[in-house]
Amino acid sequence: LRLDASNLPAFARGCAVLAAGASGDPELGLVIALRAVEEHGPIEVIDPADLDDGALVMPCGAIGAPTIADERIWNGDEGGVLRDAVERLHGSTVRALMCFEIGGANGLLPVGWAARLGLPLVDADGKGRTFPGLHQQAMHLAGVPAGPMAMTDGRGNTLVLRAVDEGWAERLARGVAASLGGVCAGALYCMPAERARTATVAGSPARAVAIGQAVAGTREARRRPIAIADALGAAMLIEGRLVDVERRAGHGFVQGAATVQGAGRDAGRQLRLELQNEYLLALEDGEVRAAVPDLICVLAGDTGDPIATEGLRYGQNVAVIAARAPDIWLTGDALALVGPGAFGYEVEYASV
Amino acid sequence: LRLDASNLPAFARGCAVLAAGASGDPELGLVIALRAVEEHGPIEVIDPADLDDGALVMPCGAIGAPTIADERIWNGDEGGVLRDAVERLHGSTVRALMCFEIGGANGLLPVGWAARLGLPLVDADGKGRTFPGLHQQAMHLAGVPAGPMAMTDGRGNTLVLRAVDEGWAERLARGVAASLGGVCAGALYCMPAERARTATVAGSPARAVAIGQAVAGTREARRRPIAIADALGAAMLIEGRLVDVERRAGHGFVQGAATVQGAGRDAGRQLRLELQNEYLLALEDGEVRAAVPDLICVLAGDTGDPIATEGLRYGQNVAVIAARAPDIWLTGDALALVGPGAFGYEVEYASV
Repeated sequence: LRLDASNLPAFARGCAVLAAGASGDPELGLVIALRAVEEHGPIEVIDPADLDDGALVMPCGAIGAPTIADERIWNGDEGGVLRDAVERLHGSTVRALMCFEIGGANGLLPVGWAARLGLPLVDADGKGRTFPGLHQQAMHLAGVPAGPMAMTDGRGNTLVLRAVDEGWAERLARGVAASLGGVCAGALYCMPAERARTATVAGSPARAVAIGQAVAGTREARRRPIAIADALGAAMLIEGRLVDVERRAGHGFVQGAATVQGAGRDAGRQLRLELQNEYLLALEDGEVRAAVPDLICVLAGDTGDPIATEGLRYGQNVAVIAARAPDIWLTGDALALVGPGAFGYEVEYASV
Repeated sequence: LRLDASNLPAFARGCAVLAAGASGDPELGLVIALRAVEEHGPIEVIDPADLDDGALVMPCGAIGAPTIADERIWNGDEGGVLRDAVERLHGSTVRALMCFEIGGANGLLPVGWAARLGLPLVDADGKGRTFPGLHQQAMHLAGVPAGPMAMTDGRGNTLVLRAVDEGWAERLARGVAASLGGVCAGALYCMPAERARTATVAGSPARAVAIGQAVAGTREARRRPIAIADALGAAMLIEGRLVDVERRAGHGFVQGAATVQGAGRDAGRQLRLELQNEYLLALEDGEVRAAVPDLICVLAGDTGDPIATEGLRYGQNVAVIAARAPDIWLTGDALALVGPGAFGYEVEYASV
C-alpha cells in the first residue's frame, strides 16, 4: 500500500468511521497530509515483517482534547521533533512511524509526519479504532512500556515523561497536553519491529482505505451505509430515526445515550446506544446487541457520513452498524482493558 | 563549612530570613535534613573552586505552590531520582548539589538530598534569597540554559522538559508541578563547576548559617532583629506596628501592601511595604527606601522571627530591615531580571 493524493481522502474517511463516534475531525489532518505528499512524495505503508527485527518503530499522534485538536494548527514539524527526542531516548534510529490510534484525526497526523520525514508507515495501529484511554492499546496489553513518552507542541517545547504506571502516564500526559495548549503531539510505546509484528492491531491503515474506497465506489449516497458495513464485515443493527439524545459533559468526557426508532423494515424496533466519547453499547429490549470493543458506528442514513457522539441530533435519519473487534481484543485480558467493564458497564461482552 | 545537627537549625532560620517574606516553611525540610544527617552523616559545603572544572553541579529544589509544599510529605528519594535523570541527560556524573534558591524550604530540601546521596553541597545558590520566577536566577543571567529540566514527584514519575524559552520553561514547569500534585522536586540549570564559580550567588549557605547563629547567640529576644540586621549587614528601616494590611491572591501570587507605623525613636514615621509573594519595595513619604533585589525582611519585633507576607496581621510589632543585594544583581541586565521594573513597579532601583 502507498498513500498519496489518490487514496488519502478515502483513508481519511475510513479513519472517521473507525473513530467509533469520537470527535476529532480528520479533515485538517487530511489537508496537512495532502500537502505533505505533494511536497515530499507518497508514503509507503509497510508490513512490520519487512523491517529488521531491531528497527525502531515510533507510534505517534495527538494527545489531549480532540475538540481543541480540531482547531489546532500544526506546523508539520512535530513528527521530526518527536523522532529526534525518541532517537535520543533510545539511542537508535527511528525506521518507521505508526498511528497509535487509527480513528479520527490521529490516523492522519502520522501520515503527514511520515511524508515529511521520508519514513514509511507501519500497516498497523495500537487500537484498530478510537478508545478514550491512552493505555487502551495493543502494545500495553503485550507489555510494551508506554514510556519514555515524548511530547511536543511543535513550537520548540519538548517533554519526556516516565511514569510509574499507566494511570500516572495518562494523568501526566493530559496535564502536559493542557500546559502545551490543550493538545500536543506525542510518541509512546516505541518498540522494535519484532514486537510491532504482534503487539499491534495489524492492517488498520489498509482497512481505513478500504472503507473509504467502498464509500467512494458507491454512487447512490443512500447505499453508502451498507457499503461501509460490507467493507467492515459489519452487521446492520438498525436503520431509523433518532428519537432521543441525552448527553452530558464531565471530566473531559461526553457521556450519555441515544435512542434510534426503527423505520422501514426495522419499524417497531428501538435501539439504545450508550456512549462515552465513543459508542460503547447497543441495547435492544434490554439485551446487548453490540458491545465495546466491537466497533459501533452511527452513519447518516442519506450519506453514510459517520456521526460523532457530539453530532447526534434529534430527528436525524441514521444507520447503526457494528463490526466485530480484531481478535487481539477478544482475550480475557484484552476485554478487561477495553471491554464493557472497563467503561463501568456491568454487561458481558458477546461478539456481534 | 559542614552542615550537621549542630548548625542545621541555624541554617534553617537563615533560610527563613532569606525568603524575603515568601511562604514556604523550612520546618519540614529541617526535619528531613536532620534525619538525613543522622543516618548518613554531615554534608560538606564546598567552594565550587574545589571541584574539577568539568564536575557536574545540580541545582535543585521544589517547584510549584509553596503552600502545598508545606504539607507535602517528601520521601527523601527525590534527589536520587533527579540525580539519575540528570546523569542520563548529561552523560556525566553529578559531583555536587546546589540549592537553586536558598530562601525558605528550598534551602533545606537539597541538604537532605545531598546527605542521602553522600554528595557535597556547593556554597552558592541561584538567587541569594527567594524570587517568584523560576528563571530569576544568576545562572539565567549568565546564559546557562535552564533545560533540560528534570522533575519528579518521588513516587516514580519523572519528567524532562526542554523549553523554547524561559517563559515556556516556567509555564510548563508549573503545569507539570500541578499534574504531580501541586509541587514537585526539580533540577535545572545544571552546569559544570567551572560555570558554577561565577554564574551563581556565592556563599549563600554560609550566610544562612551566620544569620541563624546570630539569632541563637542573642539571648534577649527583643535584640534579635538587630542581630539579624548586623549579620546581614542590613539597615534597620523602621521599628513599629502594622497599622494596615491589604492583600489579595490572584494568578497564584499574593499581592498587596502593608503599612508600618513607627514607634519609639521611629515615632511619627510610616513605612509602606509593597509585596508580591515577597516584600519588594519599602516607601516612606513616597520615596523609595529599599527596593528589590535588595532583601527586605519583616521580623517580629519581640522574637526576630521572619514574618511571611501571608503572615502579616494588623497590630503586629515588627522590625523592617533591608540588606543590599549581592553585587551579581546590581548590573543593568540583572536589574532588568529582578529589579523593581521586573515586578511592574515604575521606580528606579537604588541600593539601600
